[in-house]
Amino acid sequence: MTDELTDRVTVDFEPLGRRARVARGATLLEAARQAGVGLNAVCGGAGTCGTCRVRVVSGQVSPPTAAEQESLAEGFRLACQACALDDVRVDVPPASITAPQRAQIEGRERPVELDPAVHSFDVAPDPPSLTDLRADATRLREALEEQHGVTVNRCDHGALCQLPALLREHGWNARLVIRDGEVIAVAPAGTSPLGLAVDIGTTKVAAYLVDLESGETLAAAGVMNPQIAYGEDVMARIAYAMDGEDQARELQRVLAEGLNDLACKLCAQAERDSVEIVEAVLVGNTCMHHLVLGLPVEQLGLAPYVAALAYPYDVKAQELGLRFAPGAYVHLLPNIAGFVGADHVSMLLAAGIHETGEVAVGLDIGTNTEISLAANGRLLSCSCASGPAFEGAHIRDGMRAAPGAVEWVRLADGRVEYQTIDDAPPVGICGSGVLDAVAELRKIGVIKPNGAMNPDGHPRVRGTGAHTEFVLVPAGERGALRDVVVTRKDVNEIQLAKAAIRAGVDVLLEEAGLEEQQIERVVVAGAFGTYLDVGSAVAVGMFPSLPRERFVQVGNAAGIGAKLVLMSRRARTMTQDIARRVEYVELTTHPHFVEVYTMALMLP
Amino acid sequence: MTDELTDRVTVDFEPLGRRARVARGATLLEAARQAGVGLNAVCGGAGTCGTCRVRVVSGQVSPPTAAEQESLAEGFRLACQACALDDVRVDVPPASITAPQRAQIEGRERPVELDPAVHSFDVAPDPPSLTDLRADATRLREALEEQHGVTVNRCDHGALCQLPALLREHGWNARLVIRDGEVIAVAPAGTSPLGLAVDIGTTKVAAYLVDLESGETLAAAGVMNPQIAYGEDVMARIAYAMDGEDQARELQRVLAEGLNDLACKLCAQAERDSVEIVEAVLVGNTCMHHLVLGLPVEQLGLAPYVAALAYPYDVKAQELGLRFAPGAYVHLLPNIAGFVGADHVSMLLAAGIHETGEVAVGLDIGTNTEISLAANGRLLSCSCASGPAFEGAHIRDGMRAAPGAVEWVRLADGRVEYQTIDDAPPVGICGSGVLDAVAELRKIGVIKPNGAMNPDGHPRVRGTGAHTEFVLVPAGERGALRDVVVTRKDVNEIQLAKAAIRAGVDVLLEEAGLEEQQIERVVVAGAFGTYLDVGSAVAVGMFPSLPRERFVQVGNAAGIGAKLVLMSRRARTMTQDIARRVEYVELTTHPHFVEVYTMALMLP
Repeated sequence: MTDELTDRVTVDFEPLGRRARVARGATLLEAARQAGVGLNAVCGGAGTCGTCRVRVVSGQVSPPTAAEQESLAEGFRLACQACALDDVRVDVPPASITAPQRAQIEGRERPVELDPAVHSFDVAPDPPSLTDLRADATRLREALEEQHGVTVNRCDHGALCQLPALLREHGWNARLVIRDGEVIAVAPAGTSPLGLAVDIGTTKVAAYLVDLESGETLAAAGVMNPQIAYGEDVMARIAYAMDGEDQARELQRVLAEGLNDLACKLCAQAERDSVEIVEAVLVGNTCMHHLVLGLPVEQLGLAPYVAALAYPYDVKAQELGLRFAPGAYVHLLPNIAGFVGADHVSMLLAAGIHETGEVAVGLDIGTNTEISLAANGRLLSCSCASGPAFEGAHIRDGMRAAPGAVEWVRLADGRVEYQTIDDAPPVGICGSGVLDAVAELRKIGVIKPNGAMNPDGHPRVRGTGAHTEFVLVPAGERGALRDVVVTRKDVNEIQLAKAAIRAGVDVLLEEAGLEEQQIERVVVAGAFGTYLDVGSAVAVGMFPSLPRERFVQVGNAAGIGAKLVLMSRRARTMTQDIARRVEYVELTTHPHFVEVYTMALMLP
Repeated sequence: MTDELTDRVTVDFEPLGRRARVARGATLLEAARQAGVGLNAVCGGAGTCGTCRVRVVSGQVSPPTAAEQESLAEGFRLACQACALDDVRVDVPPASITAPQRAQIEGRERPVELDPAVHSFDVAPDPPSLTDLRADATRLREALEEQHGVTVNRCDHGALCQLPALLREHGWNARLVIRDGEVIAVAPAGTSPLGLAVDIGTTKVAAYLVDLESGETLAAAGVMNPQIAYGEDVMARIAYAMDGEDQARELQRVLAEGLNDLACKLCAQAERDSVEIVEAVLVGNTCMHHLVLGLPVEQLGLAPYVAALAYPYDVKAQELGLRFAPGAYVHLLPNIAGFVGADHVSMLLAAGIHETGEVAVGLDIGTNTEISLAANGRLLSCSCASGPAFEGAHIRDGMRAAPGAVEWVRLADGRVEYQTIDDAPPVGICGSGVLDAVAELRKIGVIKPNGAMNPDGHPRVRGTGAHTEFVLVPAGERGALRDVVVTRKDVNEIQLAKAAIRAGVDVLLEEAGLEEQQIERVVVAGAFGTYLDVGSAVAVGMFPSLPRERFVQVGNAAGIGAKLVLMSRRARTMTQDIARRVEYVELTTHPHFVEVYTMALMLP
């Protein structure tokens, strides 16, 4: 008996204790996806990023491919390359796991007058009788008009289907939730409607549950974007979606399910139910925006990178597979361009840089970094491909901001000082740590302005030429299982990333006819932007050389902006004004970009 | 091995050649549903109607229940009672099958100016470029405004998802279908949009496929309502739906799937695709209206019989499980009351009795008969429980209007003349046949005014007292396998049915202060209403005794009305006026109803 059903093998993932049954020959990455193990896969399974490293403990797997030579030297296989030929047991190192990770849900709030898109009313119609045969919907509509002076002209179909039983079970009393003349939900009288604000990052998702009657934030949480398993950056996900309709649908589905899980978790914390969520506001970059809507993303991956949809959008949650109230709407903020998305609009709303009259820069640092410059009544925006180095990718010992990641480094008087997240034994180095390390190594002269390492600059430097590296943590120190190093190549990655950001700022300044010293405020948003050391960022030349007090780190401004838009229709209108006002500057075709970028590659 | 999976048996249905695998112990009716065999089940499987008779050819079934005694005498089992204990082969007699049956799709058309709720435009936007980065949706919206002066403010989500690929595959040319400011479908340029009008009867479904650009009817067809397998009349279906949420959902689902199949069939005839259907109009009685929408029907089965929804309703086809264009809408006409539904409004629209200034009666005869009286600017309506006798149910040898049914009877000079549908060997008798038989038997004195049979009135009369019966077709004649008889009890069923209808007419006349001779026109709609002999209907007292020329048989007026509403927004508005104008008269609580009804039971 060798039919398809029986030709399956078991893959066990340790120390997680997860198991998958897969077809013989499936990759370990496919098995991990099936088992719900969040393996890193920056390149989407192409074998190029080396982030899905696992150790095969027992069982037979396929011979190593060319892509695995580097990992093999350290005893690892790449899960995207190795195929299970028999029952296999693999060990997953912490650095390869996408979760847990430090979540970023806090941010600077700004006060807002509560005026959400939905309003709700308790209504008590007369029960029907032989002399009053009005249909339930008519009865309720008329009671709403008599008792509250509110006119509705539509009822969501799902809400309508729940109406007759609800009215009869609760003695002809009900709470109606109304949005723009439509009844979108029915509930027992007295139930306050819930709202959900979500910032869908390429890597992380942050969500806030809000009571739309009191304006109170009932719960907040951050999780990994479950699409991580299908490619870590936007381009890898676009490539995956382009593999076919099923793949595109799967990307949408896993994200929607992730949002459902997150909503359930938040509601459980608040002792509520996710079917009480009547309105959600989602923000994300243009690709996340399209993926959560199930819109095609191919055109976002090809010049001229146009969005399918840019204007503000309302869609029933149900259409996206979100299990909220039957008629709940999801509102998406406008996108500005293919790479400046609704999340940047949301960040601008929360940071308010366009309102103060100051010359101000707003940055949201991520794999793509969006930058806006407010000056003289103008609002200029661009997007730069800063890459995933600050997320720990493409860095030899890089990892995300998870326990054991070196997040802070100081080199002084020959000493090497560092901190790890949660004070856990050092495992690798995350974005803020590698930025610090480069800044400090430059400061003590181990790194030269062009990024090359001086082999004699420090006792911890080893190797030569392109293979020079600095041992930040020697194996054994504080429980480290292996050396944690910063390589010459890592320095180059940081140079590429910081140069992209700096070039973006400089091109915007040029467009506005300003000098960097005229910048009065720099608002830095996003998770990496919260944890980075501004001094180090200035030291490597990522940020303009301005006094420390001109910088503000605002946390998850995109998420906070989403919450504002959830709570206030005025804020919603403001995002449309912002999107309309923005002058988008395309860097790739800008005449001075290459020149400015090349300059910015140097370490001051 | 006796796990659940293996404890299954096979049930074969002959001569249909259909097979089901069911759990051992399942009823033959359950097996028939699974096999897609449309068995009659008037009572919804309660064992009381005797319409699901089958002959067990081989295999072991459960012992007969008390409910089966009558059928057993003729060698039949009731499929709802007999359980398959082993592999079973059963023979299904034609009278137990719901299809094929004479469909009723024709009707008197009235001219209408084409002005549907949807309009469509070919649009050719400029392709995007590095200097024109507008999002696809913005680009199209602006092109629509520039090229046609049409403004839209929403786009259906499914249509939006199709947009980017469609534009790129067809060289930035597209047909947009627009409804009330919303883009509901996108298609290659030049595609004419399709509309579907459907009359959902309790028993039959009639549908019309219309080209909404030319107004041409491309195809029409009638099929059985697939819910028949769950109970033949409205009350049986309500009872089934009340068994639980799954049952209610199943009733909705089978109907929606039936409509999908019908739409596919019509589109195939017209060499089109059902995803090109952008608008549908559904009419039905209040229960069918609620069932197709998935609305609860419990409250329709209990006094005071109020509808969940009465006002005109637009809902996305997708919400009902209808696979038309992604953003296609379904429009439902208003209901008047729990038992006077959208189909009657549609019939009134098509027949136009409220417009002429004449004193006119409109009847739609079915299991429930809706009656309207237009007089002196008023429009009075009522519903009467005429029962399923005219559908052949509760009649000893009754059957639907299918091949082999006696549909016409004349008794003169001692001869018995009759016609069967399709001239097939006589199998039973359908509504028009039994009405004729009763009228003729009364005319020659075999039946007395109270419905009793005179045992000596005719050589074909046999039995005595309550068991008297008239042999309409002796076994062997023209290939009949058994006698086809009209029993004393059958006569009583016809008396109950016709009295209900006549009492409805008389109560409405009384409410309007009119005498029957003042009626200038009687419009008779519906399938039975088309095939019945008006002379016989007058003879038994079902209709007022008026000259033949005052009667008009208009065919499927409800279906024609649905088509009018599909093609014309003006007609749509008129249905709202009709529903608003109707004064509903509740017969069950009317002070004179019982008296009038009792009088009407007599045969003149």
